[in-house]
Amino acid sequence: MESGSHHATSDERADAGRVAAGPARGLVCRGCGAEYPLVAQHACFECFGPLEVSYDPAALARVTRADIEAGPHNIWRYAPLLPAGQDPAGRITLDPGLTPLVAATGLAAELGIHAPLWVKDDSANPTHSFKDRVVSVALTAARGLGFTRFACASTGNLANSVAAHAARAGVPSIVFIPADLEPGKVITTAVYGGDLVAIDGSYDDVNRLCGELVETDEFEDTAFVNVNVRPYYAEGSKTLGYEVAEQLGWRIPAQVVVPMASGELLTKIDKAFSELVEIGLATAPDGGWTVFGAQSTGCNPIATALHAGTDTVTPVRPTGIAKSLNIGDPAAGLYALEAVRRTGGWMDHADDDEIRAGIRLLARTTGVFAETAGGVTVAVLRKLVESGRLDPTRETVVYNTGEGLKTIDAVAGQVGPSHRVKASLRAVRDAGLLG
Amino acid sequence: MESGSHHATSDERADAGRVAAGPARGLVCRGCGAEYPLVAQHACFECFGPLEVSYDPAALARVTRADIEAGPHNIWRYAPLLPAGQDPAGRITLDPGLTPLVAATGLAAELGIHAPLWVKDDSANPTHSFKDRVVSVALTAARGLGFTRFACASTGNLANSVAAHAARAGVPSIVFIPADLEPGKVITTAVYGGDLVAIDGSYDDVNRLCGELVETDEFEDTAFVNVNVRPYYAEGSKTLGYEVAEQLGWRIPAQVVVPMASGELLTKIDKAFSELVEIGLATAPDGGWTVFGAQSTGCNPIATALHAGTDTVTPVRPTGIAKSLNIGDPAAGLYALEAVRRTGGWMDHADDDEIRAGIRLLARTTGVFAETAGGVTVAVLRKLVESGRLDPTRETVVYNTGEGLKTIDAVAGQVGPSHRVKASLRAVRDAGLLG
Repeated sequence: MESGSHHATSDERADAGRVAAGPARGLVCRGCGAEYPLVAQHACFECFGPLEVSYDPAALARVTRADIEAGPHNIWRYAPLLPAGQDPAGRITLDPGLTPLVAATGLAAELGIHAPLWVKDDSANPTHSFKDRVVSVALTAARGLGFTRFACASTGNLANSVAAHAARAGVPSIVFIPADLEPGKVITTAVYGGDLVAIDGSYDDVNRLCGELVETDEFEDTAFVNVNVRPYYAEGSKTLGYEVAEQLGWRIPAQVVVPMASGELLTKIDKAFSELVEIGLATAPDGGWTVFGAQSTGCNPIATALHAGTDTVTPVRPTGIAKSLNIGDPAAGLYALEAVRRTGGWMDHADDDEIRAGIRLLARTTGVFAETAGGVTVAVLRKLVESGRLDPTRETVVYNTGEGLKTIDAVAGQVGPSHRVKASLRAVRDAGLLG
Repeated sequence: MESGSHHATSDERADAGRVAAGPARGLVCRGCGAEYPLVAQHACFECFGPLEVSYDPAALARVTRADIEAGPHNIWRYAPLLPAGQDPAGRITLDPGLTPLVAATGLAAELGIHAPLWVKDDSANPTHSFKDRVVSVALTAARGLGFTRFACASTGNLANSVAAHAARAGVPSIVFIPADLEPGKVITTAVYGGDLVAIDGSYDDVNRLCGELVETDEFEDTAFVNVNVRPYYAEGSKTLGYEVAEQLGWRIPAQVVVPMASGELLTKIDKAFSELVEIGLATAPDGGWTVFGAQSTGCNPIATALHAGTDTVTPVRPTGIAKSLNIGDPAAGLYALEAVRRTGGWMDHADDDEIRAGIRLLARTTGVFAETAGGVTVAVLRKLVESGRLDPTRETVVYNTGEGLKTIDAVAGQVGPSHRVKASLRAVRDAGLLG
């Protein structure tokens, strides 16, 4: 798909100019509203606020359900609503998306939810997390912008996805991770053969370092998916909103529970719902939808700000087993607070024991084996029902963003064979397995 | 989906009689041709040969491409060609199937293959192996036959799948595994909460034990997917043939390379191709298709028989890291030999080092992280090219049947971070990462 041998210069990238057409119009600062063209830039020159992709409303309004339904069985069916990937030949992708929306009848019964409860199971993506969505969009934009090496700062899942995408496309990659990641995520990155740099420090340290590297000459040709092409990257998360709506027959669910690391996923699901309603593709529930956020107790700066009634998200040094959510200085925390407050939602957090119980509860009742982040979300769902913050009579979707096999140590000490016996009928009988 | 509280008696099961309509006509002995109705039976009363589902040719001939293409995006689009699952409400399923057919351009280049090379990546199934296909068909048949508990003898992937299916359906399960399985597969079974019995012995010991258990009164209501409902179970593998043909635009590929444990998967892919051609749904390549089988050197009784030019498959005691293929007494070995000989194919085997190299080669060139069985298949593909047994100018499909995360120890000692540095620009520079 890509030779990997040609390195574009800055000038060539400038010539390439905007990423290929589509509905995106420019980048806009979430802080001061300053506008920029569709280039590789993530912070506002005026106020240092984060940039977001803005769209041509007329282009979005032309999209029909039929257009989408005629598309491929993956995120690219939503290309008319994304900032990259309109041309199939230009995609750098493992074709993630259209993951199962699982009816969680047994889970609803255990939690006392008397309305449809669904698990959006993104462990079904190619590298088994929702990160395949954002990486496919980011790298496709990056290719359009002329970048010839792919990189990221990662808590693990992103590393897996960037390395796998680069391997498929035949493009060099360099991935930066905290040195203490789960072995499952380290090996599942290294096996793809790109450079993998373990950093002695937290994710926030890794992220800061990548922010410095991206300014160096040596990294001029390198797209850091969550740094210099972050605005495109973030838009990939919208597909987790679009898909749920389409899978429900073009209805927005009344309530969603979303895990939070940077907080970006939550804001983009909310943004996707707003877009679909605005352009008439989906109907909102009576009274609108409500967004709930889930954090790990070991890293809960956004939930803490909500509980304190402030807009100030105070960074923390993360602890706890939910490493994929361990971002102590969450870039989109403020916007997640805004979405939750605007929709009448709430945030809560779960400690390590509750996370483990959440993983087991979800597996036992739905057959979905989630990573620790999914355990967080299910544990918080339980708390939200118990505290009355979540309405058990309204339809609810809970997002599982990753795969249990990647964080298997979380439950390894808790589950195992229920019996161990010799290979004979008598031994089985003696073990009480024959009544 | 299932209350799990009602236990059908033998009489009730007899009343239920055949599994619901569909194209299946009966069970037929692969040895002597004796015929039986569609009941829970896997061996011939006459000659003890294995039973296979037979179909009404007229019913199969009525199936059109349009019927299939209008179906769901999973194995059930092929329900008109399967022995169970015609009624969606009666399915016990995680909806596996329609997994990616990945263009392996980089792998082809490395191996000197000058024709399209594809990887059929079944790690994309819900529990990340092809076993979800056979379990969905077996348990759906089992439910139709009145069974109220689900069980299996497993080398790991089957255990994961049966336990997850049972959890989703709310049906009790009891799974038997060799005690020395990979931790990834043990935990990923236990987390679903059913009974999990670790047996001190090999898979073949476990399988023999289950063959005894199924005859006991206490297990009268229990469907062992690969024992008493094995004929239905085996048919689920046909979908791996149907899908490849459909994904190639209703063409049968010229060559396929398939991993072998019992040998059944290989025979069913071949059977699927034959059916599609016979009923006019797909076209065969000029000169027909050729089937290749891949085993681990630690467990290669079928390949050994082929190389010795005999029909006698002599059981072995398996060793080596490819545990999901470690069936020393392969039930369908004879039929796998027949298919490979009839189509002009070959079998080969790969040792543990070659398996590890196969996993890494596949990951690096395609972005697909396979379990050890996939490493076997890629390593054997390489050998078949080198020995000239496989024609590098003909289109080839290689089957990856499982997920690298489940056998991560296989490569854990070989891959890891390429660099480890402090979180500073200077440290990165000192490590040589800035040119």
